[in-house]
Amino acid sequence: MSHLQLQLHSQAPSLSSSSSTSSRFSFLKLFTNNAFSYSPTNSLPFKPLTIRCRHSDVFETTTNPSSTPNNPSVGALPPRVYVGHSIYKGKAALTITPRPPEFMPLDSGAYKISRDGYVLLQFAPSVGPRQYDWNRKQVFSLSVDEMGSVISLGAKGSCEFFHDPYMGKSDEGKVRKVLKVEPFSDGSGFFFNLSVQNKLVNVEESITLPVTKAELSVLSAIFKYIMPYLLGWHTFADSINPEYSVAAASVASNANPKYGGDYEWNR
Amino acid sequence: MSHLQLQLHSQAPSLSSSSSTSSRFSFLKLFTNNAFSYSPTNSLPFKPLTIRCRHSDVFETTTNPSSTPNNPSVGALPPRVYVGHSIYKGKAALTITPRPPEFMPLDSGAYKISRDGYVLLQFAPSVGPRQYDWNRKQVFSLSVDEMGSVISLGAKGSCEFFHDPYMGKSDEGKVRKVLKVEPFSDGSGFFFNLSVQNKLVNVEESITLPVTKAELSVLSAIFKYIMPYLLGWHTFADSINPEYSVAAASVASNANPKYGGDYEWNR
Amino acid sequence: MSHLQLQLHSQAPSLSSSSSTSSRFSFLKLFTNNAFSYSPTNSLPFKPLTIRCRHSDVFETTTNPSSTPNNPSVGALPPRVYVGHSIYKGKAALTITPRPPEFMPLDSGAYKISRDGYVLLQFAPSVGPRQYDWNRKQVFSLSVDEMGSVISLGAKGSCEFFHDPYMGKSDEGKVRKVLKVEPFSDGSGFFFNLSVQNKLVNVEESITLPVTKAELSVLSAIFKYIMPYLLGWHTFADSINPEYSVAAASVASNANPKYGGDYEWNR
Amino acid sequence: MSHLQLQLHSQAPSLSSSSSTSSRFSFLKLFTNNAFSYSPTNSLPFKPLTIRCRHSDVFETTTNPSSTPNNPSVGALPPRVYVGHSIYKGKAALTITPRPPEFMPLDSGAYKISRDGYVLLQFAPSVGPRQYDWNRKQVFSLSVDEMGSVISLGAKGSCEFFHDPYMGKSDEGKVRKVLKVEPFSDGSGFFFNLSVQNKLVNVEESITLPVTKAELSVLSAIFKYIMPYLLGWHTFADSINPEYSVAAASVASNANPKYGGDYEWNR
Repeated sequence: MSHLQLQLHSQAPSLSSSSSTSSRFSFLKLFTNNAFSYSPTNSLPFKPLTIRCRHSDVFETTTNPSSTPNNPSVGALPPRVYVGHSIYKGKAALTITPRPPEFMPLDSGAYKISRDGYVLLQFAPSVGPRQYDWNRKQVFSLSVDEMGSVISLGAKGSCEFFHDPYMGKSDEGKVRKVLKVEPFSDGSGFFFNLSVQNKLVNVEESITLPVTKAELSVLSAIFKYIMPYLLGWHTFADSINPEYSVAAASVASNANPKYGGDYEWNR
Repeated sequence: MSHLQLQLHSQAPSLSSSSSTSSRFSFLKLFTNNAFSYSPTNSLPFKPLTIRCRHSDVFETTTNPSSTPNNPSVGALPPRVYVGHSIYKGKAALTITPRPPEFMPLDSGAYKISRDGYVLLQFAPSVGPRQYDWNRKQVFSLSVDEMGSVISLGAKGSCEFFHDPYMGKSDEGKVRKVLKVEPFSDGSGFFFNLSVQNKLVNVEESITLPVTKAELSVLSAIFKYIMPYLLGWHTFADSINPEYSVAAASVASNANPKYGGDYEWNR
Repeated sequence: MSHLQLQLHSQAPSLSSSSSTSSRFSFLKLFTNNAFSYSPTNSLPFKPLTIRCRHSDVFETTTNPSSTPNNPSVGALPPRVYVGHSIYKGKAALTITPRPPEFMPLDSGAYKISRDGYVLLQFAPSVGPRQYDWNRKQVFSLSVDEMGSVISLGAKGSCEFFHDPYMGKSDEGKVRKVLKVEPFSDGSGFFFNLSVQNKLVNVEESITLPVTKAELSVLSAIFKYIMPYLLGWHTFADSINPEYSVAAASVASNANPKYGGDYEWNR
Repeated sequence: MSHLQLQLHSQAPSLSSSSSTSSRFSFLKLFTNNAFSYSPTNSLPFKPLTIRCRHSDVFETTTNPSSTPNNPSVGALPPRVYVGHSIYKGKAALTITPRPPEFMPLDSGAYKISRDGYVLLQFAPSVGPRQYDWNRKQVFSLSVDEMGSVISLGAKGSCEFFHDPYMGKSDEGKVRKVLKVEPFSDGSGFFFNLSVQNKLVNVEESITLPVTKAELSVLSAIFKYIMPYLLGWHTFADSINPEYSVAAASVASNANPKYGGDYEWNR
């Protein structure tokens, strides 16, 4: 049970743009020290704590100063901003938040992308008009390739993704998540259904949200915008600089003036 | 004539990119001191003052120095630039301007988006060849989701949005705005019709503008460009930085070396 | 005749990204002082001076140091880079280069866009295998709305634009330019035809270039990329900043805590 | 084993964003000192050394300090980040990495693009479950126009590109590369087939990878994102600046107040 709580808490800073990992750590610490108000163990015995339509209000509870990492090894950073995009419907709500790629330093001083970024889908069932129970939320990490499936859905397409957060670990198979995207019969949108079977905490949940074509076009626009960043390609793009390129080319051509590059087509 | 300047002033901040709220404030102050021209009841008794085709000329009248907020708490900012995009037709003109999201500081030092940005549609009827009466303009705030409807219109699609600027307030229901987008019969474009019924000032106005498919493709391109910014996702994108990410990950993994993240797929 | 030369010369720095106007000026000065090698009056009596396939070689002739404006009032600028995109075919070549919007300062210290940017299409006829006569080039300034027409062409669509560079001036009607985009009969691409009738220099030229669907998709991608910049919307996007927004909002809400903004929808 | 490292080294700089040329130089130096492993004739006699699914692990072997150019003439640069995007299938894997454009300084102090950027496609055959033999990889440099072909494929389209890396050189015709993209019979994706006939090392290789529509939509998104950067248009976009534009315009209009620019349409 504490297992699930940890997972839920690890999501709270999921909107953190620049320091998600350290925030997760401070959240984990918080959890072990406090009865954290979002913990389902605390709230489930009671009337579910509901939150108004404005889902991002959940961030207002992030008041513990320890959640602000003052990492002295990192210079002046832009302020952290929690961003997302939400779709509120009668029976459920969906919040989508981006999560950054992870980088690994190489001995050369350069970096490689050690893990692609993704978007976190958070589904919450409704418990009344414009009220959603985020304690019962279920999450799904949508990879860049899975975003590709969503943005390439035709009017009548569908797709289905299976995730096991513990794949390759001792608890493999104990949590099964299935996200299905299936078209409305009239072609005007898609049902997003997330089914989670969690044997670790003995929970089964299935949450369905209708998404109109118009709403899907917003998702497509932000997915197409964010995918290059999730893959880190903006770091390549930002490094294209005439002054440096020329300097590097000069070094190379002096050393080997006949160096022909690897262009394969004629200009 | 000072009448018109006031109205233009109220429009100028609508294009302000970086300080819309403080601009609005100076506008509000003006409003309490003057008979504010936004109200059609004031302006209708007079002969409409028309403005030439070059709608952005209105900004040249923004000469009141109080509209330049010199906020000492904010460092060197990029210069404010009023941007927009206009479509001029025989019977009406439409100017589209982006409005920024609003941010709320959290106790942690981070920020959340407290309100998404949007684009402001300003419709003005024509009063002669290439002359539009911006005193009679009607405005409509198009949300990101509504932009999604516009960009996902097929050749024969249509959409319709209802707004009440006073929803949830004492004047709820007294102003009703309807924006309809309906296809030409030959499929070569769309009629944009804004109908406003304003019982507070006893005005009804309906302005229709034909928008060709080519013009709609420009709107789609700028909507797709601007939507991530209106949702603040660029602040996430801009914060993806290999040096900081690695530092943060190192802190987290030292503290909790078994922390496995929340990736749900196998690589 | 010198008239046309000026126009052609004014295009040479057309790829200048950051100081096109001052470059044009230095070019104009050059022209009056020198027999400039691209001047048709000079070259037409002779065998046309042909340039190899690599059209951007033309920039190598820009060696006069006076073409580097050292404007002391402007700080450290990024280096100027001439960019473009070319399509070379058997009978003609087309080079497309972006031209920036122009800004006008307001008394408030802000700026407005006084003229949208555009892309300059430069067509040159071929004079042999992979050789094009850029002395005979004809140019066409494609506006953002016209780009909208090009990117919204269906498989069998067409469009046609008429330009008169002297519209509203004394020479109105003396130069007529028509750009037609018409589909191949098999739907695999489009003919771009530029016809220019210039009574000032007694020239008629018609240049046609076949553009495949694949090549058009590159044009569409770069048009969609560049359109927001040509309209200046990037200056709005770049100014969205949580720290400043919050400061401005605080001023406004203190002054008028009931200020409700102009949101028209319920959240 | 040092054999593999050499090859990996040759691959690592292929992802280098800001100093590809100097990295290539260090690779060339290695090549003249060693029996370079790129040649399949060398590596085939040995048991292929396979690499796990996580292809970017190859970068961890890039430990040779000579691959870090410390070019003192270039100021504080952003860290180099190796980026790419991979598709892993049963019989082959494909990694796509961007390569920057090259710039040439002009006497004026400005730059021109001397060579467009491109994306490098690296195909490797599988040698077991989730294991690919990157020693036998074959590469293909996809130009911006060829990306245009890929992103404009309809459901049933196909395209085919021929490259000769030695075109125009003495070894012209000795290496022939053909990349074919052909639709699945059910329209749900495309086969990417790279055939290489290399008479210099007496190798023929043909590697085929199925790419689903969803995966292609990811490629399309990142191609559309990166194309303007590969053409250097971001340097134009980044230079659009109201303060400088106004200064430049002022210089030009003082010098030649009647200068009318080359706008060809009426506003």
